[in-house]
Amino acid sequence: MSSFKVTVAYDGTDFVGWQRQASGVSVQALIEDALEPLDGRRVTVTGAGRTDAGVHALGQVASFTLEREVDASTVLRAVNARLPPDVRILTAETVAPAFHARFDARSKTYRYRIWNVDVVSPFERRYVWHVPGALDVDAMDTAARSLEGRRDFSAFQAAENDTATTERTLFSSRVVASPPQLFYEADGDGFLRHMVRTIVGSLVEVGRGKRPPEWLREVLESRDRTRAGRTAPASGLFLLGVHYD
Amino acid sequence: MSSFKVTVAYDGTDFVGWQRQASGVSVQALIEDALEPLDGRRVTVTGAGRTDAGVHALGQVASFTLEREVDASTVLRAVNARLPPDVRILTAETVAPAFHARFDARSKTYRYRIWNVDVVSPFERRYVWHVPGALDVDAMDTAARSLEGRRDFSAFQAAENDTATTERTLFSSRVVASPPQLFYEADGDGFLRHMVRTIVGSLVEVGRGKRPPEWLREVLESRDRTRAGRTAPASGLFLLGVHYD
Repeated sequence: MSSFKVTVAYDGTDFVGWQRQASGVSVQALIEDALEPLDGRRVTVTGAGRTDAGVHALGQVASFTLEREVDASTVLRAVNARLPPDVRILTAETVAPAFHARFDARSKTYRYRIWNVDVVSPFERRYVWHVPGALDVDAMDTAARSLEGRRDFSAFQAAENDTATTERTLFSSRVVASPPQLFYEADGDGFLRHMVRTIVGSLVEVGRGKRPPEWLREVLESRDRTRAGRTAPASGLFLLGVHYD
Repeated sequence: MSSFKVTVAYDGTDFVGWQRQASGVSVQALIEDALEPLDGRRVTVTGAGRTDAGVHALGQVASFTLEREVDASTVLRAVNARLPPDVRILTAETVAPAFHARFDARSKTYRYRIWNVDVVSPFERRYVWHVPGALDVDAMDTAARSLEGRRDFSAFQAAENDTATTERTLFSSRVVASPPQLFYEADGDGFLRHMVRTIVGSLVEVGRGKRPPEWLREVLESRDRTRAGRTAPASGLFLLGVHYD
């Protein structure tokens, strides 16, 4: 037996998300299918975060155990050889069999990219949300920071969800100007379904001056999903990395 | 009447190139089609450089004249509204009717992107040539610089071509390390068909140690296309910009 931790990058544009679904192509299923000939049996791959349809990853982390003794560089090469080019294993390392990509994760970092000028670069169109017009970055950042800490984020979760508890800790929640882009960056111990995208949709209302910075905290405390802004499109969202002790 | 100079960015992946062809989608035809409703007639658009199928542009320049009096910002907005997202007009300005994007260009700058590590990022796969393994950047740069000046580049042109003269001036021809990438950057008064890509294919042979740096100059002086390296793939090539007096 040999157990592995891998970091995975994918262009989420054409996928139904990380997790295997009844229909559509998922990243998890592609990796599991790529591992099967290597181990001669079905392999279950666990991802640190379930990214939704259309969401990208620069540093998703996944774990799995093979019956065979294989070294990490063989796993990396063999899996990449069988994956389509929009999914790549970036690194592979052997870990203790007890390692679990999801349960052992201390935090995950997401970045949401807003393209804030009139014309979207053809090379960025799949990887941003296009929001032209003036945005008040300071107001957005103040609003973003007001969500830091341990909170009940039920106001910012998807209508359809299957979570037992809606409390999560945001270690960091910031808006950063990187012209012609704005980034919303969040590091937390867990994220509810659509949480980052609903926060971003709400932050844009603050940026446009339709709501004051304090409004985000009011929405949070209401625990009422109908009060938050629209869900920002998946195309702008990247899972940057997953952190372990 | 009003005449315009526009800069155009495009992801060349799905195009037959800049120039209108009997079949397939060209960037020129898309822009001409987008201008037709604005001017109520066919408009001819002249590009500074004829990029080939699959070649990208960050700063192609084109010129055209409309019968109507329109301002530049209207042209930019109206054309972008009718273009697919893989082509964007980045800037538009009014110019004298005599301005000609090709004949008035003093130089064009191309960048060729080589991805020089084992794994290609899913976000870069359409925009690079994947060349894993050690490459001697200094040897490549020495070879690249040996082509600077006014030269007969017939050894580096496509088998099929329609050029009267094969002399061109390279003002600058350099290899630059930008890990995990290598760039070949060339600025010149004109480029033969496949010239940059054939130079890059030859530079990679030097980088791999199969040929000495002096070999590029020998190929050049032979004027014999069969002596040069393979033509590097179109995906790595970008027209960065066009310069005018």
